[in-house]
Amino acid sequence: MSYNLLKGKRGIIFGALNEQSIAWKVAVRAVEEGATITLSNTSVAVRMGDISKLGEQLGAEVIEADATSVEDLENVFRRSMEVLGGKIDFVLHSIGMSPNVRKKRTYDNLDYGLLEKTLDISAISFHKMLQVAKKMGAIADYGSVIALTYVAAQRTLFGYNDMADAKAMLESIARSFGYIYGREHHVRINTISQSPTMTTAGSGIKGMDSLMDFANRMSPLGNASADECADYCVVMFSDLTRKVTMQTLYHDGGFSSMGMSLRAMDQYEKSFDKYRDENGNIMYG
Amino acid sequence: MSYNLLKGKRGIIFGALNEQSIAWKVAVRAVEEGATITLSNTSVAVRMGDISKLGEQLGAEVIEADATSVEDLENVFRRSMEVLGGKIDFVLHSIGMSPNVRKKRTYDNLDYGLLEKTLDISAISFHKMLQVAKKMGAIADYGSVIALTYVAAQRTLFGYNDMADAKAMLESIARSFGYIYGREHHVRINTISQSPTMTTAGSGIKGMDSLMDFANRMSPLGNASADECADYCVVMFSDLTRKVTMQTLYHDGGFSSMGMSLRAMDQYEKSFDKYRDENGNIMYG
Amino acid sequence: MSYNLLKGKRGIIFGALNEQSIAWKVAVRAVEEGATITLSNTSVAVRMGDISKLGEQLGAEVIEADATSVEDLENVFRRSMEVLGGKIDFVLHSIGMSPNVRKKRTYDNLDYGLLEKTLDISAISFHKMLQVAKKMGAIADYGSVIALTYVAAQRTLFGYNDMADAKAMLESIARSFGYIYGREHHVRINTISQSPTMTTAGSGIKGMDSLMDFANRMSPLGNASADECADYCVVMFSDLTRKVTMQTLYHDGGFSSMGMSLRAMDQYEKSFDKYRDENGNIMYG
Amino acid sequence: MSYNLLKGKRGIIFGALNEQSIAWKVAVRAVEEGATITLSNTSVAVRMGDISKLGEQLGAEVIEADATSVEDLENVFRRSMEVLGGKIDFVLHSIGMSPNVRKKRTYDNLDYGLLEKTLDISAISFHKMLQVAKKMGAIADYGSVIALTYVAAQRTLFGYNDMADAKAMLESIARSFGYIYGREHHVRINTISQSPTMTTAGSGIKGMDSLMDFANRMSPLGNASADECADYCVVMFSDLTRKVTMQTLYHDGGFSSMGMSLRAMDQYEKSFDKYRDENGNIMYG
Repeated sequence: MSYNLLKGKRGIIFGALNEQSIAWKVAVRAVEEGATITLSNTSVAVRMGDISKLGEQLGAEVIEADATSVEDLENVFRRSMEVLGGKIDFVLHSIGMSPNVRKKRTYDNLDYGLLEKTLDISAISFHKMLQVAKKMGAIADYGSVIALTYVAAQRTLFGYNDMADAKAMLESIARSFGYIYGREHHVRINTISQSPTMTTAGSGIKGMDSLMDFANRMSPLGNASADECADYCVVMFSDLTRKVTMQTLYHDGGFSSMGMSLRAMDQYEKSFDKYRDENGNIMYG
Repeated sequence: MSYNLLKGKRGIIFGALNEQSIAWKVAVRAVEEGATITLSNTSVAVRMGDISKLGEQLGAEVIEADATSVEDLENVFRRSMEVLGGKIDFVLHSIGMSPNVRKKRTYDNLDYGLLEKTLDISAISFHKMLQVAKKMGAIADYGSVIALTYVAAQRTLFGYNDMADAKAMLESIARSFGYIYGREHHVRINTISQSPTMTTAGSGIKGMDSLMDFANRMSPLGNASADECADYCVVMFSDLTRKVTMQTLYHDGGFSSMGMSLRAMDQYEKSFDKYRDENGNIMYG
Repeated sequence: MSYNLLKGKRGIIFGALNEQSIAWKVAVRAVEEGATITLSNTSVAVRMGDISKLGEQLGAEVIEADATSVEDLENVFRRSMEVLGGKIDFVLHSIGMSPNVRKKRTYDNLDYGLLEKTLDISAISFHKMLQVAKKMGAIADYGSVIALTYVAAQRTLFGYNDMADAKAMLESIARSFGYIYGREHHVRINTISQSPTMTTAGSGIKGMDSLMDFANRMSPLGNASADECADYCVVMFSDLTRKVTMQTLYHDGGFSSMGMSLRAMDQYEKSFDKYRDENGNIMYG
Repeated sequence: MSYNLLKGKRGIIFGALNEQSIAWKVAVRAVEEGATITLSNTSVAVRMGDISKLGEQLGAEVIEADATSVEDLENVFRRSMEVLGGKIDFVLHSIGMSPNVRKKRTYDNLDYGLLEKTLDISAISFHKMLQVAKKMGAIADYGSVIALTYVAAQRTLFGYNDMADAKAMLESIARSFGYIYGREHHVRINTISQSPTMTTAGSGIKGMDSLMDFANRMSPLGNASADECADYCVVMFSDLTRKVTMQTLYHDGGFSSMGMSLRAMDQYEKSFDKYRDENGNIMYG
């Protein structure tokens, strides 16, 4: 189903890896909605993932880039403007990785060299992208930029580790740069705070399936899927949302506004089944 | 310009008065996007305003109703389902009024009978609308409901008076009912927190033009217009935002995320022009 | 243990019922810290509860009042100034009740007459208290006013019902009136958002023990007790917090900043024990 | 005036420079309240500032340390435990600096090497402090840690530059580490979001005096002073606030909850004096 919401628009999608990726779905939906796009990811990701296949499928050039490299980012914007034939109307930043999590360092035992990498990859890359684009005049007036984030930026989740701090910084960058890019070029910058999603990146998080179950039961509409996230990105890229900027937009089935749902509590209560007395009261050992 | 975003959808727009009304613009845009709608407002508003003209223009039946009356609301939903031929897909609540403000009662001198009216008209009417609709099964599964709100729900603005408390309650109702309507029927309920807008309602607020000037200079994208708000409502009614619920969505050019802009501060500094010494420092009297 | 933090200060404590009440603990601690106080509650509460005993114990006059009655509130302030010998330095509002909850009306089946009562008792009473005090000049400059609230004002909890909307309004009143009372008399007004607490009021909430267990496991410091809340109220009444105003202050062991704790998730996972396959994966039926 | 709130407690104060510093005031007040403390700052700051004088005045050892050096921080905690005779009960982090601001790099022209320094000095130093302390077992159970922050973490202020992102990260660290340190040792970690304060650090910010004037007129209680901040830190270090953790605590005279005050708007309106027509309406050029 297409509405032609992005007809004639040019975009860059950072971070698609394989069919599970949110960025993948956004790329597909953006093209369905009439956009022409380029895709970018690291050379490792291009080698390991299926992004070349996606590029062929969508007629989109794949531009390898390390998003922590200013030079690489300059190349992405330059090349994208060349192949797409003009300034860029929308950008998706779907990039995040914590080497501390990978190395199983807990949050009270961080390696500070790795923390620097977490921040550089997951947050500062967003600033670099914006600064490079602005210096090059690469984003068209009234353009729209989105980065994907997670509620861990506001509320601590065990195991999310230094990614929480990176996401908090990412959302701050969206505000700080949104002010400047907005006042000078009407470019809007927002983050979308998505439900936990079983992507390749998400599958690395400790206890991910239980967390997703809990989030799903807490959210009146259930967890938002990657497909639904792609739809939401499309409307945020369209001309119908031109005055929304510097916001963290929750796309989570209601999770962020929930304290406790009946469904989640019903499930939680089952955990005490073995520990109830004959009157049904919980016996604390 | 139309994307057919609401093709085949049925909606009810509460609160259109005249061409300046946000609700008016939403009605027009919804129809442009393929929806069929009904319009509702009080009998006084229908008499005083131009809503009948709008109804003719859009081929939309105008249903008089006092939104504080459960009976009247039942009639709106019943009649709307009749004339539109099925369950309702989207609803706009654009209703608010403070008799205390009208009577020039300050916030430390409220009349409590009038406060009850402020709440009933501006907040509880939203609950009544939802409760009536749910009891009647009047809103289709995956429907979308929006109420208009203002940042005064979070931050105090002089002169906004008891409307601030009503808006805080309105946003709470969106969350409370959003949970229930979401889990049972996938209906999503959000509020849109709009820039100050020079509608007939807005024009009654004390110092409205200075406030709008300040908000405009504070917001990197400038104040959001009623037309832009209508666009945003349309995407929130569409199928592309199905997992967004229980949120206060800021549509304000960035105002809500600003502490101080250079433009607003430059203007503010001019206020001291007469009070500066020869070195340019402010002289406090 | 006393620090004399409230030495020479005069206070009014609304809402003490029995030894479990937070207001009871606040009264005791305030007197320990050197304050002289009066106590106020409804005539029914005075009859049913142990407040007279508390009054004797603390040498505090008990003044019966319906906090929804302006006249009664005027009497409380007038009489308190008489017996305490001067203007009031601090006030605690610990009042809340939902007749809809009592009548087991669900949130999608509210009785609107009862909703009016919920709001009048739980939120508007706070405005009345402040308006009466300000008109009478009853609160001393640099005074401090606190109302107790709950995180349901921001996040929906099943079963909390229309109290959520009342609490959202209560917090808004604290901001709206805090602005006015602050600029004119340096009176600060805040709300304390307390952990779920097993008071007589709390014990009526559905599934309260499971909710408290969950909140306790989610909160890194565990739920805050009524005694600890009393300590926090004391510092907010003292001269050491003179520039804190219009805030919702979370006193909840960290709950409000948590997305998911390991302890809560460990417990949650036990609920699936019967539904796991031989590899430990959850089997969805 | 002393309440003996910190009697017998041991603390470390990071970041005092001279009499204007908030950290200086906190040190003085903490000792007045019965604590014994050590002071820490960089060797440059010790040389340039008056901290040695403060140390003598308070009988507090000054321990030179670069707060970005894990080794130096280890030494601060080790030496503090030695001279104070036991584990540390409270810590103040009042450290922040942006080399980008110093070098007059605008936010859309950041030097990324300098950004790394901004983050390391202003945010990561807080994590290092906590990680070092936890590994050494240096903070006593039920201890309290505070870092000073600013509302720029939530709302963009022109000229605050990359410090906004650093403060957002700082507040996230308080949450992330607050969870871990809380559950394991009941140590609470909060940030205090203080009014703009004319310290040596603050005086470097562009347009600081106008901003302070605006903030002061917006805040019903006026800007919070450094002295008042010291009082607030003392209560947060005391045993009376043991269940407050992972919070950003606004100490700002109400600024954070204000949208627009009458006083600020009155001043703002004066800026149009030269641009009004004979009817008093603003003439837009």
